[in-house]
Amino acid sequence: MNETHYRRKDLLGIEELSRGEIEHILDLAKSLREINERAIKKVPTLRGKTVVSIFYEPSTRTKMSFEIAAKRLSADTYSISTTTSSMVKGETFLDTIKNLEAMKPDVFIIRHSQSGLPHRIASLTPVSVINAGDGQHEHPSQALLDLLTVIDHRGSVEGLQLLIVGDILHSRVARSNIWAFTKMGAEVTLCGPPTLLPPGWVEKSFQGAKVKVTYDLDEAIPNADVIMVLRLQRERQKLSFLPSLREYAVLYGVNAKRLERARKDLIVMHPGPINRGVELSPDVADGRWSVILDQVTNGVAVRMAILYILAQRGGGLTEI
Amino acid sequence: MNETHYRRKDLLGIEELSRGEIEHILDLAKSLREINERAIKKVPTLRGKTVVSIFYEPSTRTKMSFEIAAKRLSADTYSISTTTSSMVKGETFLDTIKNLEAMKPDVFIIRHSQSGLPHRIASLTPVSVINAGDGQHEHPSQALLDLLTVIDHRGSVEGLQLLIVGDILHSRVARSNIWAFTKMGAEVTLCGPPTLLPPGWVEKSFQGAKVKVTYDLDEAIPNADVIMVLRLQRERQKLSFLPSLREYAVLYGVNAKRLERARKDLIVMHPGPINRGVELSPDVADGRWSVILDQVTNGVAVRMAILYILAQRGGGLTEI
Amino acid sequence: MNETHYRRKDLLGIEELSRGEIEHILDLAKSLREINERAIKKVPTLRGKTVVSIFYEPSTRTKMSFEIAAKRLSADTYSISTTTSSMVKGETFLDTIKNLEAMKPDVFIIRHSQSGLPHRIASLTPVSVINAGDGQHEHPSQALLDLLTVIDHRGSVEGLQLLIVGDILHSRVARSNIWAFTKMGAEVTLCGPPTLLPPGWVEKSFQGAKVKVTYDLDEAIPNADVIMVLRLQRERQKLSFLPSLREYAVLYGVNAKRLERARKDLIVMHPGPINRGVELSPDVADGRWSVILDQVTNGVAVRMAILYILAQRGGGLTEI
Repeated sequence: MNETHYRRKDLLGIEELSRGEIEHILDLAKSLREINERAIKKVPTLRGKTVVSIFYEPSTRTKMSFEIAAKRLSADTYSISTTTSSMVKGETFLDTIKNLEAMKPDVFIIRHSQSGLPHRIASLTPVSVINAGDGQHEHPSQALLDLLTVIDHRGSVEGLQLLIVGDILHSRVARSNIWAFTKMGAEVTLCGPPTLLPPGWVEKSFQGAKVKVTYDLDEAIPNADVIMVLRLQRERQKLSFLPSLREYAVLYGVNAKRLERARKDLIVMHPGPINRGVELSPDVADGRWSVILDQVTNGVAVRMAILYILAQRGGGLTEI
Repeated sequence: MNETHYRRKDLLGIEELSRGEIEHILDLAKSLREINERAIKKVPTLRGKTVVSIFYEPSTRTKMSFEIAAKRLSADTYSISTTTSSMVKGETFLDTIKNLEAMKPDVFIIRHSQSGLPHRIASLTPVSVINAGDGQHEHPSQALLDLLTVIDHRGSVEGLQLLIVGDILHSRVARSNIWAFTKMGAEVTLCGPPTLLPPGWVEKSFQGAKVKVTYDLDEAIPNADVIMVLRLQRERQKLSFLPSLREYAVLYGVNAKRLERARKDLIVMHPGPINRGVELSPDVADGRWSVILDQVTNGVAVRMAILYILAQRGGGLTEI
Repeated sequence: MNETHYRRKDLLGIEELSRGEIEHILDLAKSLREINERAIKKVPTLRGKTVVSIFYEPSTRTKMSFEIAAKRLSADTYSISTTTSSMVKGETFLDTIKNLEAMKPDVFIIRHSQSGLPHRIASLTPVSVINAGDGQHEHPSQALLDLLTVIDHRGSVEGLQLLIVGDILHSRVARSNIWAFTKMGAEVTLCGPPTLLPPGWVEKSFQGAKVKVTYDLDEAIPNADVIMVLRLQRERQKLSFLPSLREYAVLYGVNAKRLERARKDLIVMHPGPINRGVELSPDVADGRWSVILDQVTNGVAVRMAILYILAQRGGGLTEI
């Protein structure tokens, strides 16, 4: 596919997108984001549109980011979570979706622990579906905001060296970003303990993408333009993927000492929330390399763009 | 009472309503529902009105339906549930209500496990109260959306045969619908196991209404124009009202096999959430008889009408 | 400080405010409160402003009051609570705040069990912070609504005798009100069991303020113009501050019998939620002395004023 405009009903993953589709979203995000800097941070664009967040995993920042994006475009937002929903009464997820669909919403934003669920839902409903994270599969809006943040700081992604560090195997953020950055012309190196980055897994999972693997963080750092540090899920340790958090920090924690050998213009990203002192030390999280809060700011802009594009399909939008 | 317009402060139950009052709500729902089909699903009618949902039982669809109805009319919505409320601090329900009342809301939407509570609250506050389900008593907005759905499919309720199947004894949906359909000229037959439909109970509970009782589902089906299948609360089994869910499904579960003897134009309803394979089989829930999702769509329209009528009492509404 | 206008970024406590600043908020509250009596209770003043409630302790009335205040001024509101937030993922509170800040909100409303936390947050963010209750420290919006309520009933606070009864030691409401009423010219008497009002504590905590202490409620009542009854936290009993709730009620419970010796124009206040029969008897809570629901009504007005003043700093407000 060589689409130059995003015309899909849904945003489910980066894997299936063309570079043109990605650029369409990013360009729109760039033009929308000044709304968030105004004294009156609101435009009537999505007035009368109904956006429903369906989060079956806890979340602050992603859920809030989508909500703020929706409301600043004047959409009405609704929220369902596991604890309040009919799921506790034994209803199937699809029945919940079909019921909500009958109330005529425009967009579903779905986070679920089951990989592929948003795709299945999207194929069964006329409502636009945004995947806000599905299991260990994809988290496309995160990858788009990461792209935008790198472009802001480096002008372009083309030819850059992206180093992703951490629990690659279980990370939907890594997966979406591998697709996103390679499609946009970057080279990606993955680094983590072998238990979390098994030999052969990359070749199988990302056929045709320019992805390298290393198990030595210190060797990888000098070459990187961008380091993306993944959140370490503490429950991995219980499942014997890790010896101890302390040993993980020693081998794979990104800290200022390690970055002495990095490029001067290196930037460091993290999808949050941070385990300070585990995968990322405070001196880096709060240091000159960090663009972590820029990622959050761009998150709102990217989600405004996504909502705008998908809700537009139903017609009736005011010009911005 | 022979009111032809709904002029009450509250909507507490169907039992006390006249046919004219019911028709007033349904007619308004019919004229409001096209709003939900527009590209911009929003009118300014209830701008500046304050609608507070107070749900002391879990709910997705009813709560969401009311919220969508309120916001599409531009009301501001607020929500209180058991877990977040001062009830956990030992405050009485009436004190909670009186405190909320002092913040000048226009409408309370109350769901509570205690039968009659919304009526008591309504008598103690000038705020309009909508009963969104009280114990085993009434759920009037459900009955109104059920009426509207039948009227959509059959033109009128007059003279129709409604068969309600399931746990009649504990069902506020059944109770509200018995009043609703008999007032509108239908004949109602109730069917369920004797433990859930005790001899003598109907005569006592619905004096003067045209209601028949049967314990044999297969005998009742051929005569029905509409079958309303009730949700089986799984906890009934624990309380020895039922031998097993499997036996219940065999004797009282509505499935395609059973409907072979039904009228060609039969429609099947369910208030949701469905226990698939217990009270209703998937081949019926998703089959040609089912109008279950139409019920959900009509739910938003009926609740818009209810909110419109009650909030109108405070004045200041924009013409639609 | 002798400021006559409130020009601070935040509202963190009453202790640091001048009388002029307090009067500025109260005067604005008086002019805004008629909005809550209109048929259309909404003005466009804070359109496009983003107000985020961050409540780490349960609350109905304060949270709802702020939300209603914000929405009636047309701000967009968002809410984070302990259970849904990234805190469960181990993120620090400051990281949560910094992330939210990056989404460009205008106001944070923070309730937290840790005394002083809102002050620390306020010093670390450009976003306006409202302290909605921090540990045993301050609850400034409560004191402001209490002032407004007394002014409504007595014309002025100057020269009045305020009697605060209960668990003074642990009460942020007491603390904020001691500052508020003494700054506005009232004399304050504190009354409670010695365990909850230790000798020497007042002198140390409120240097320079006109505050007296008594352990005999019946002796204190005849002199009072206003009695403010504090909520008794039931957990105090477990911690051996109290012998029993029953004994507390006998010695320090405010009831009609006790008020026989009070001034004819006495008013009784309570911040809610009430433990009926413990610190306050129903005959007083619902009796002629009670202005408790006026407090709640004034709460919305005072919070509208606070939000208006703080959000104004970002510019772009429509004239009221």
